[in-house]
Amino acid sequence: MTTLVPSPVRVIGTGLIGGSLGMALGRAGAAVQVEDVSPGTTALAVELGVGALPAPEDPAPQLVLVAAPPDVAAQVIDRALRTWPEAVVADVASVKTTVLEGVRALARAEDLPRYIGAHPMAGREVSGVIAARGDLFQGRPFVIVPHPGTVPEAVTALKGLATEIGSVPVTMDASAHDTAVAHVSHVPQVMASLVAGTLLEPTEAALGLAGQGLRDTTRIADSDPRLWVEILGANAAAVADVLGDVRVRLDDILAALDSLRGSPDPSIGSRRALAGLIADGNRGVRRIPGKHGGGTDAFATVTVLVPDRPGELARLLTEIGQIGVNLEDLRLEHELGRAVGLAHVAIDATREDLLTRSLAERGWTVADA
Amino acid sequence: MTTLVPSPVRVIGTGLIGGSLGMALGRAGAAVQVEDVSPGTTALAVELGVGALPAPEDPAPQLVLVAAPPDVAAQVIDRALRTWPEAVVADVASVKTTVLEGVRALARAEDLPRYIGAHPMAGREVSGVIAARGDLFQGRPFVIVPHPGTVPEAVTALKGLATEIGSVPVTMDASAHDTAVAHVSHVPQVMASLVAGTLLEPTEAALGLAGQGLRDTTRIADSDPRLWVEILGANAAAVADVLGDVRVRLDDILAALDSLRGSPDPSIGSRRALAGLIADGNRGVRRIPGKHGGGTDAFATVTVLVPDRPGELARLLTEIGQIGVNLEDLRLEHELGRAVGLAHVAIDATREDLLTRSLAERGWTVADA
Repeated sequence: MTTLVPSPVRVIGTGLIGGSLGMALGRAGAAVQVEDVSPGTTALAVELGVGALPAPEDPAPQLVLVAAPPDVAAQVIDRALRTWPEAVVADVASVKTTVLEGVRALARAEDLPRYIGAHPMAGREVSGVIAARGDLFQGRPFVIVPHPGTVPEAVTALKGLATEIGSVPVTMDASAHDTAVAHVSHVPQVMASLVAGTLLEPTEAALGLAGQGLRDTTRIADSDPRLWVEILGANAAAVADVLGDVRVRLDDILAALDSLRGSPDPSIGSRRALAGLIADGNRGVRRIPGKHGGGTDAFATVTVLVPDRPGELARLLTEIGQIGVNLEDLRLEHELGRAVGLAHVAIDATREDLLTRSLAERGWTVADA
Repeated sequence: MTTLVPSPVRVIGTGLIGGSLGMALGRAGAAVQVEDVSPGTTALAVELGVGALPAPEDPAPQLVLVAAPPDVAAQVIDRALRTWPEAVVADVASVKTTVLEGVRALARAEDLPRYIGAHPMAGREVSGVIAARGDLFQGRPFVIVPHPGTVPEAVTALKGLATEIGSVPVTMDASAHDTAVAHVSHVPQVMASLVAGTLLEPTEAALGLAGQGLRDTTRIADSDPRLWVEILGANAAAVADVLGDVRVRLDDILAALDSLRGSPDPSIGSRRALAGLIADGNRGVRRIPGKHGGGTDAFATVTVLVPDRPGELARLLTEIGQIGVNLEDLRLEHELGRAVGLAHVAIDATREDLLTRSLAERGWTVADA
């Protein structure tokens, strides 16, 4: 089977990400060799179909994927560059600048052009090879992070890899990547953990009043401390920059609340500070693209049961707007004398999950696609 | 039809909450009279089936529900207490202490015992009578907030009302209520808006890396600034107390990140601060009860399709644990030669939504209940 991926591929570190990459690459027709510091993990990875144990007679890998923890990535990359002088060597750590600095400090100048960074974006709550799956990166962004000296062949190799595993390749430099993930992943994690941390104090009766909003806001707070100490530590500068802005705004809000505290006739400025917070939040949340990173313009059709009562269709369209989904097209299906009609709602395909889930949460009956 | 609700009921203010209460009470057999400062809104409410326009020959209301904005609630309540000297008068504003203070300042001492606060907990993104629905409060907490002078009949009336509309009555005093909603609703709203507010800065390419975590964390940021200025202003003290603690912890995190910034060998203390943040978040998020306010201990069974490949069942159980749901029981159903098996997973019924949604997000095929 022909593949866009240079083969064989050596996957070093068979956790969730390395394991899933191996499975995906195997399905894409690449010969995958696996290795892990833990022999047990390596054996499990082979059993789960991540790849094969390297044999002495195997040809040298053309592509090496280092899926080791960020703190050891640089050493492993340097070793790989020296061991396989022909291979493109990429790491898949979720933070890129610190890894690049580490490689620059360790690697020989002549090896550096064969190094390239990568970050296949995927769910974080899961971990371990036991959770690996070949379709983990399907439709997700695959960030390719060349440094100024990276050879074009390395970029081509990773674009081919991203395509073969069904991801959407995106190219950024290391600092742009780290700023981006600080915004879309690391700062939201810190904020969700801060919110969840305030829930140690209230009574059970108080928590009994919790609704969907609190659960959504704190869902990602249930994640691995060890993993996140590594990530936040490795991206400290970018995360601190964004959190610094958050702190400034939080201080404004606290000042506004203090002036409103018990005051019958609060200052306009205080109310303006609160309104500005919510309004900017409205604008910010509407900038978030759909599930596949806004990669597609295709429409999807969601079919909703509409009770034959005055205002029901209007309510549906109102709520679709409130959910933040643009209506692209609407087709109604209604039998005379029947108590319900069907609304076929065409929307941006990347918003389908959001709309289906949100409508269901609001009590609408949504027909399965 | 007999009902536990004193009838007729006068609903003053027919927005989402007042409108939904009217619909629910009508279905429960109460005679509902509606009034709103806007004649257009009143007419629409009647058309949507919230209730009827009061007629001169109508008997006086036994129960008055004031669903006016918090800033005018006290005046409307006082007027109602004076207009109907026999009626129990309740307001449904989402903040209780400031309303109670307002009523105490305005109302005659002999009227005060007939006043009682209430807060039917319901979704906030929606607004307006067009979005009203009779089942809005189904299975949700209905907080009853008597003051020390409230007559027992008023408490009985609201318990009856809560029961008739399918809510779960919960009794708290005003300050306990305001502290509770600060924790479960107001502070999460501020934090979600703060996160969303940071999304005005990044490039579209950066936002293209967004995943489900960011969307969940910021979903409630898409809410009405005018409404939230009222709510946060009316509950400024309780919100400021919780946000003050958040600010202290945020400062610790910023200090830790600064010490980690570019440092090859970061201090143990800094890493401990980050690990503590995530770990406390883990504990906090696990305290949140399920959809119905943790009201039930009954089990629910979720049926999941398990591909017949090594590790799949283990992966399912691992992920169920990672989702934070305790497995109460497991039954397997497997036909020889069939490529998939069924896992019937028994869990706390209040976790069913979370598990079903999370497993689906992770790509599992979950059979509909």
